[in-house]
Amino acid sequence: MELRDEALLKHEGGKFETSLKLPIEDKHDLCVAYTPGVAEPCKEIAKDKSLVYKYTSKGNTIAVISDGTAVLGLGDIGPEAGIPVMEGKCNLFKKFANIDAIPLCIDTKDPEEIIRTCKILAPSLGGINLEDISAPRCVTIERRLIKELDIPVMHDDQHGTSIVVGAAVMNCVRLTGKKMEDLVVVMSGTGAAGSNIARMLKRLGVKTIYASNINGVVDKKDYDKYDFLVKELVDDGIIDTKPNHKGTLASLLEGANVFVGVSAPNLVTKEMVKTMKDPFVFAMANPVPEISYADAKEAGAVIIGTGRSDYPNQVNNLLAFPGIFRGALDAKAKKITEGMKMAAAKALAYLIKDEELSADYILPSAFDERVVKEVSEAVKKAAIEEGVIR
Amino acid sequence: MELRDEALLKHEGGKFETSLKLPIEDKHDLCVAYTPGVAEPCKEIAKDKSLVYKYTSKGNTIAVISDGTAVLGLGDIGPEAGIPVMEGKCNLFKKFANIDAIPLCIDTKDPEEIIRTCKILAPSLGGINLEDISAPRCVTIERRLIKELDIPVMHDDQHGTSIVVGAAVMNCVRLTGKKMEDLVVVMSGTGAAGSNIARMLKRLGVKTIYASNINGVVDKKDYDKYDFLVKELVDDGIIDTKPNHKGTLASLLEGANVFVGVSAPNLVTKEMVKTMKDPFVFAMANPVPEISYADAKEAGAVIIGTGRSDYPNQVNNLLAFPGIFRGALDAKAKKITEGMKMAAAKALAYLIKDEELSADYILPSAFDERVVKEVSEAVKKAAIEEGVIR
Repeated sequence: MELRDEALLKHEGGKFETSLKLPIEDKHDLCVAYTPGVAEPCKEIAKDKSLVYKYTSKGNTIAVISDGTAVLGLGDIGPEAGIPVMEGKCNLFKKFANIDAIPLCIDTKDPEEIIRTCKILAPSLGGINLEDISAPRCVTIERRLIKELDIPVMHDDQHGTSIVVGAAVMNCVRLTGKKMEDLVVVMSGTGAAGSNIARMLKRLGVKTIYASNINGVVDKKDYDKYDFLVKELVDDGIIDTKPNHKGTLASLLEGANVFVGVSAPNLVTKEMVKTMKDPFVFAMANPVPEISYADAKEAGAVIIGTGRSDYPNQVNNLLAFPGIFRGALDAKAKKITEGMKMAAAKALAYLIKDEELSADYILPSAFDERVVKEVSEAVKKAAIEEGVIR
Repeated sequence: MELRDEALLKHEGGKFETSLKLPIEDKHDLCVAYTPGVAEPCKEIAKDKSLVYKYTSKGNTIAVISDGTAVLGLGDIGPEAGIPVMEGKCNLFKKFANIDAIPLCIDTKDPEEIIRTCKILAPSLGGINLEDISAPRCVTIERRLIKELDIPVMHDDQHGTSIVVGAAVMNCVRLTGKKMEDLVVVMSGTGAAGSNIARMLKRLGVKTIYASNINGVVDKKDYDKYDFLVKELVDDGIIDTKPNHKGTLASLLEGANVFVGVSAPNLVTKEMVKTMKDPFVFAMANPVPEISYADAKEAGAVIIGTGRSDYPNQVNNLLAFPGIFRGALDAKAKKITEGMKMAAAKALAYLIKDEELSADYILPSAFDERVVKEVSEAVKKAAIEEGVIR
């Protein structure tokens, strides 16, 4: 069967389901799980609100919340059409991290109202995974919620990819003996994912990052034209302007070591890769990357990663989000900090042992049981060390 | 073990859990349930929004939403402390009607904001069960949502009890041969539950209903003092003023046939029951009824119902809400109408066969498998007949 047909068939009736953690088989069970027994935990929580984590499912329940404005590569398809993705994400949370996740596609695009809705829903939730919300609104919404809520909030589209790319670049360095500070990185795309990848690489020690986006090469002289995300990257010294660039992605790539694409299909040619120096190519436009694995290989790329599962080194944020939320919930964290994300990236890189590491194996499989274990433990440890716990 | 201790112990970790409707065991499963396969149902729904019912779990998912202002008999204990009740209710929906229900305790008491939150959440939901919201706000909220949303919305505290009491009174009449129109009913309590019980009994053919509440006997001359719920009951001719009443519940009960209490413990004495005529006594204050089963029996009550599971004829809204939502979802109903609730009450009454009916068996057990089946089929049929389906 074609994937399309199989996907439609298997989606009939949806993918989300609940189950009874406490069975109800007779009158006695009813008296315990419902009236009159249920009054006891209610009264305890009314006396001491922190007991909500002891006597309810809050501590293991998150919501996957989207307004449907940036679903996959499909754009603003509305909340209803976004539901299959959120249900899928919830299943992944359950399967990989045993987190009970609720898919909520919401009927508002107003950032203030999205923020308010998340805050209104917070009493029942142990965390919030924001998903597929268009940039730069997603950044504003996530920042406000991190500041204003005392449960972990993460917009996966911003951080999932940056954590996995961070791990991948760490392992490129481990494998080839290059130094982080010597790498010249060229980004294609400076949106929600791109801006966080650039920040992650900078924190890992990369000194030089150039970037282009849909408006051309990022150049300080055009500062006033940029949205606040790009302005911040310039202000914070994350992105530099390449001297004497010719306004093209090709001119940025000459002599560079790393290409990081979170942009659009087929923007990079074999000729462009040939001008790079010992190139690491991460072409993550999905499903069609900036340059195909085969072309990048032919052009001499040393290490290649894509967003696809049918080539080596899949940059899949499934490597990050289950372990991050598992670790944050286990730590009783009040937020997910930069330090916790960095700990996740390092754990993801170093769970591959030196002897396992190869050009076609710088990232583990999502089905590798070490992934959630190592990532969650590292995230939990970082949260406790930073003291961001309740 | 004491019930209190057992309830606290069993509530540790909460009662809500999710499960995977579509298993994810390997890369292929991932491609089907998540990217790239998940894009297919998304695209179909983007083209035709009605397919959200085909390709997602929306059609079998409801939210149990509370602001924590009227939890059990505990009052306004806040959203966190209300969670155990909502989780319990969700379990009952799953156990008895195979409905996937999400417990959401929300951090706002503002009726407009509650209404807006429900509307924002509607894309993912097949229905909304409002729960434990204080009166008369709950009435305003429910009416607005029924009008403004195209998914079934019901505030169970208002209608669950009225449906079960309706069934019980129907069976009192069946068993004793009395006529509905000859009954004189006295209500104690005219809040969310009481006002709907009175309306249900009127629709069933009862001609005379008197009522008292915390402010005394409902008397037309005091009209201006009443809240809008009581005013409506007077305006609509649901509640009459007993001529020459002495301002006491006792004076209303003299010569009456039916007592319906949704009020407070121990308001009715044996002496008061003795003044009634062939009394049917429904004393549903919980956990301590308006008069105990034993006292009502001693005083000559012919049929007695309470809210307790340790006496015959438990008036338990678990007899109503699972079947009502099951039927509404199965019918693809856009709302839950008075006709559907009446159909539920009749189905609940008549699933007890003539030869089964007795003074101690006018209501079935919640574990009787006929209950959800008969109620849901009747509700579905009524929805289709009324044409309130999508």
